[in-house]
Parts: sequence; C-alpha cells; structure tokens
Amino acid sequence: MALKPVRVLISGFGNVGRELVRLITEYREVLARQGVRISVVGIVDSRGALVSRQGIPEETLLQLLEVPRGGVSTFKDGRPGLTTLGALDELEGVLDVLVEVTPSNYRDAEPALSHVKRALDVGVHVVSANKGPFALKYQELASAAERRGLYLGLKATVMAGTPLIDLLRYGYTGRSVELVYGVLNSTTNYILNLMHGGLSFPEALAKAQEDGYAEPDPSLDLEGWDPAAKISILSGVLGRHIPVHQVTRVPLSPAVQELVEAEWPVRYIARLDVERGAASVRPEPVEPGSPLARLQGARNGVHIVSDGGKIIYLEGTGGGPRPTALALLSDVALIARAL
Amino acid sequence: MALKPVRVLISGFGNVGRELVRLITEYREVLARQGVRISVVGIVDSRGALVSRQGIPEETLLQLLEVPRGGVSTFKDGRPGLTTLGALDELEGVLDVLVEVTPSNYRDAEPALSHVKRALDVGVHVVSANKGPFALKYQELASAAERRGLYLGLKATVMAGTPLIDLLRYGYTGRSVELVYGVLNSTTNYILNLMHGGLSFPEALAKAQEDGYAEPDPSLDLEGWDPAAKISILSGVLGRHIPVHQVTRVPLSPAVQELVEAEWPVRYIARLDVERGAASVRPEPVEPGSPLARLQGARNGVHIVSDGGKIIYLEGTGGGPRPTALALLSDVALIARAL
Repeated sequence: MALKPVRVLISGFGNVGRELVRLITEYREVLARQGVRISVVGIVDSRGALVSRQGIPEETLLQLLEVPRGGVSTFKDGRPGLTTLGALDELEGVLDVLVEVTPSNYRDAEPALSHVKRALDVGVHVVSANKGPFALKYQELASAAERRGLYLGLKATVMAGTPLIDLLRYGYTGRSVELVYGVLNSTTNYILNLMHGGLSFPEALAKAQEDGYAEPDPSLDLEGWDPAAKISILSGVLGRHIPVHQVTRVPLSPAVQELVEAEWPVRYIARLDVERGAASVRPEPVEPGSPLARLQGARNGVHIVSDGGKIIYLEGTGGGPRPTALALLSDVALIARAL
Repeated sequence: MALKPVRVLISGFGNVGRELVRLITEYREVLARQGVRISVVGIVDSRGALVSRQGIPEETLLQLLEVPRGGVSTFKDGRPGLTTLGALDELEGVLDVLVEVTPSNYRDAEPALSHVKRALDVGVHVVSANKGPFALKYQELASAAERRGLYLGLKATVMAGTPLIDLLRYGYTGRSVELVYGVLNSTTNYILNLMHGGLSFPEALAKAQEDGYAEPDPSLDLEGWDPAAKISILSGVLGRHIPVHQVTRVPLSPAVQELVEAEWPVRYIARLDVERGAASVRPEPVEPGSPLARLQGARNGVHIVSDGGKIIYLEGTGGGPRPTALALLSDVALIARAL
C-alpha cells in the first residue's frame, strides 16, 4: 500500500534539524507501521536552502548530514540566499508542515515568528522546537491556526522527549488545571546540584560549561528566559497565555548561595498559577526527598495540580538534540495521521 | 453563543456514574469556557432507564443522585426494564456518546461488550471506565471505531485521573515504545506496604478491606485481573493488543511473604514488553528509593521506556469514583471539541 507522504520543510539545520533528518530516515519502518510516511521537500539554513517539490531523496538527506554548518546551499541544486519565507513560496501547494528549529530568541522571536505566521497564512501546519514565537504570541498564532484548522505541534518546546504538552492538551481537556510547577531547565538544576555538593556558584557554572550542561553564553538559562518561555507556552496550551515578558523572573545568581546553605534543597522552579493568571521562575526550596529534590543531570520534572487538588507528577529528559528531534517527529506523525 | 451540546447516554449508575453526573452539573462553567456543553439524554441502571431525546433537565439529574441503587426507572417517566441496548435504539439520531460504566468482567465482558459494539455499529462514540470489552477485544473494537471515524475514550480504564493513555496515544505517535512497567493496582500496593510494615498477608488483607482499599471479594485484584486488564488495554493503545487472558498472571498470595522479607521492597508490577509482545503481572522486587518503591496509598506509577532506552515516569492517583469520573468527563469533552 503506497502511503501518501506528509511533506515537510525544515527551517534550521543545526544539531536538532540534523537529528530530525537522521530520525526520519532511521524511523522509516517504525513510521510505516503506524501508517506514516514523511517526505522532506526542503531544508533551509542560515545561508540558503535546498528544495525539491518531489521530495529530497534519502541518499541526499544522508549526505546533507555531513555538510558543515551553513552549507546546505553549497550542495548540488542548492539555492544560496533562499530563506524560509522564500522556500514557503516556492513550495506552495506541495507542503504540509513547517518544522521550525532555528534558535529561540525572546526579543522579537524573529525570523521564526514570520516563518510561523506565513506558514499558517498559506495553510501549512507548524511543528516547532523554537520557543520564541509561542512564548511571545501564543494567542495570535493559536487563533490563526484554529481558524484555518491547522495544528501547532509544540511538544518539543517543553521537556523535549517527555510529552508534557500532549498530557495537558488531551489529558486535561474538560478539566480544571489549577497549578503547574517544576524543574523545566537542566542547566540551572545541574548548577544547583553541584552547589549542594559544595561548589561555589562560579565553580559550579564553570563545571556545568565544561560538562556541556551550560552554553558558553549561559545568560538565557541563568536569567531564566528558557524556563520562563516554557511556562509561558504551557499557559498558552491551557488557554490563558501569559507572554514570556510577563513571567516574573528571578535569575539564578551567586546570591542563591544563602538559600543553598539553608536546610532544604533548592530548585529553580517554574510555576504557573492558572487561576490567578500568574507565572514565575525563581530558586525555591523544595522538600527533601521529594521528586523534584531528587532530579539529577538533564532530568526535568513537573507537578500538575487540578480539580480541587488532584496531583500528578511527570519526569523525563528535558532536552538534547535527539529527544527534541523525537518530539518533533512525533508531532509530524500526529499531523500525518490526521491528514 | 449557544453551544451545540454533546449528547451522552450513561450505561451504569453506581458510584462512578453518579459522580460523572455530579461533575457534569458542577463543571458546566469550566466546560463552557472550553467550548463544551454536555447533555445527558439517558441513564441506565440494572433495572431500567430514564431517557429523554431533549436531554434530562439539570434538576432531574440532581434528584437522580438521591435515588437508591437500581432506582432510576422508579423516577417519573422512568422506564422499568429498558436496557442499554434498548436505550441505544430509542435514542437513534440524537446520541453522540455512550459512556459505559458498568462493572468490568473478564469472562466475556458482557453486557458491556454488546453495548460498545452496538454503539459503534450505529455511529456513536464510546467512552468507558469498564475495562472488560477492551481487555478482551481491543483490536476488533478499535478497528470498528476507526472504520466509522469514531473515538474510543479509554483514559478512565487505566490510572483514572492520571492521563497515561493520552500520553501514550498522542505523546508517542511516531515513536518506538519498548517497555511499559509500573504499579497499576492500588489494592495490592496497599497490602504490600502493610506487609513491609510488619503485617502478615491475611492481616494486611483484612486491614486493606477495613480501610476501603480492597473489595469484600478481593479476587479480581489479588489474582491480578485488574492490572492485567490495564496492561492489556495499554498494549492495544500501542497498536499490538495482548488480550487479558494472554497476560501472565502471578497472583498476590501469602507466598509473597518470602519476597517481602528479602532485601528489596516488593511491588505488584504490571509489565508490557512491546517488542516481544509479552505482558505480565507479578510481585517483583524494585530498587529501594526508586519512584515505584515509594508509592503509597492509592498512588500508581509507571515508567515508559522508548526509542533506545529513553525513560519517563508518570505518577498519580490510580482510582476512586471522582478521579475516574474526571477522566470520563475529559474524554467526553475531547469528543465534544472534535465534533
């Protein structure tokens, strides 16, 4: 039986974009068993693009994994200077899904915001690991998607391979979610664990960078932008968006030393009070022995309180290229099955 | 704006059915904010039914909560002897969802199995807390539903208020789930916790009955039928159904004493090996301090291993009339939003 493929354009070709392409080839059989076939009709990086209305052949996809950053358009038939907006134009009529995996920014979310808007305008579903557009403009984008009957696949934006967003979206429809709180950022958690082990803040930060848990410029994590964007997106999923700039952010700074030396373990907690319409990210003491207190490495954990105090807990890997790509793949597959 | 209501027939009017009716009235506003309105067009109990093609008024619903077991048809306009199958006939053309909340049985799953089949035959969506039909005939029922474009809402059958089924259904589409294991039955967990506290098996069972954690006839729990049915349903959700009678069941018996006296805590573990197509329920030692080892009271917990060893953990309340009714309500709301 020839499956009709879902046709995707990948905007961004760094670690996550490449891992997604790898998965699409690697998971061909797993997907086929679920009635899903994915065809990549375009890949865009910072310098250009490669597009093919018939779909880029698998051999080419595997070869593209080897080109250096920014090198997609140097490939045969590559199109130097072609942007995501340009590719959206060229692929009109043969594109089902835009996969947005450019890096998040919380100033204006561009260029991803324009990509997402254009995609929705021309009737293309959106799957994104980029948090920016949704942390800033959730309501506007969700309304546009709903008007056109399009799907916004966002599970890669929060907890990566741990499908918290599906749990909230489908598992709590018709119910009353009161509170969502937990650890949604691995960098700050890694640093806090090292500080509880006796390191000072600067020592812990240096070691986190050494171990690959903190970026060379760690400010998006330490200033709380990353978990603030995530809790903002969760508020949107729950129907009352709090834009990221309205999330109270207390950065993780050397001042946390005092809290760390007190009795309870400290976690960098993202918190959404749905009823009050308030969200925050800040260091908070948590009960010793509680699930959040025990989180190590890149693990994230979140409590959901609903319906008069019913509590559940979900824990899993919070990031990394492969878990993020698995989440993207899953959203593309959900769309494919709905088509 | 007048919302078009989703019209439901409730088959079974014990604790869960009543709690659902209570929730439907109590959650009217929460549901309306999500664009959902529920109209109850029929309620069936063991002796008869009350049906109304226009919808049973809210005052009547509240009064029905006060009638004794088996008393629905003694109410004004009640219909002694009218069964669920009869009500499905009478409501032809005005019914959207059958909510099946009669007690589970794993011999032949009747009469629920016939109710579910008939509903799907006449184009009615199904939401169920009754595990029987799906533990026995998942594949047949899922195929029938798919052919007609109907929804099977099963989240109340496993972990009640903790939406594990949505997490698997939507969160893992396109991915490769390898293993699901955990504690899916509260009765056996309660007994094992008491035994670790020093009670013998008979003492622990007696106390569990006293505390309301075990039925007067505890055999469905102690013989493992309840968690076996749940793990069977999860195998169906994941696309390769293992009927409950093919789940390896090691009952919880006084023989567990020896395991309990060994070093590690014992849990009654339900386990699904997706790749091998095998499922079991049996007492197993678990690592001290691990999430499953710490489960108390009515809490259930489950690990999902996927995609080459990625592990998540989900924990929450496993049962009780209100969590179960919340899960049913949520599935009805999901259908309402899709309509």
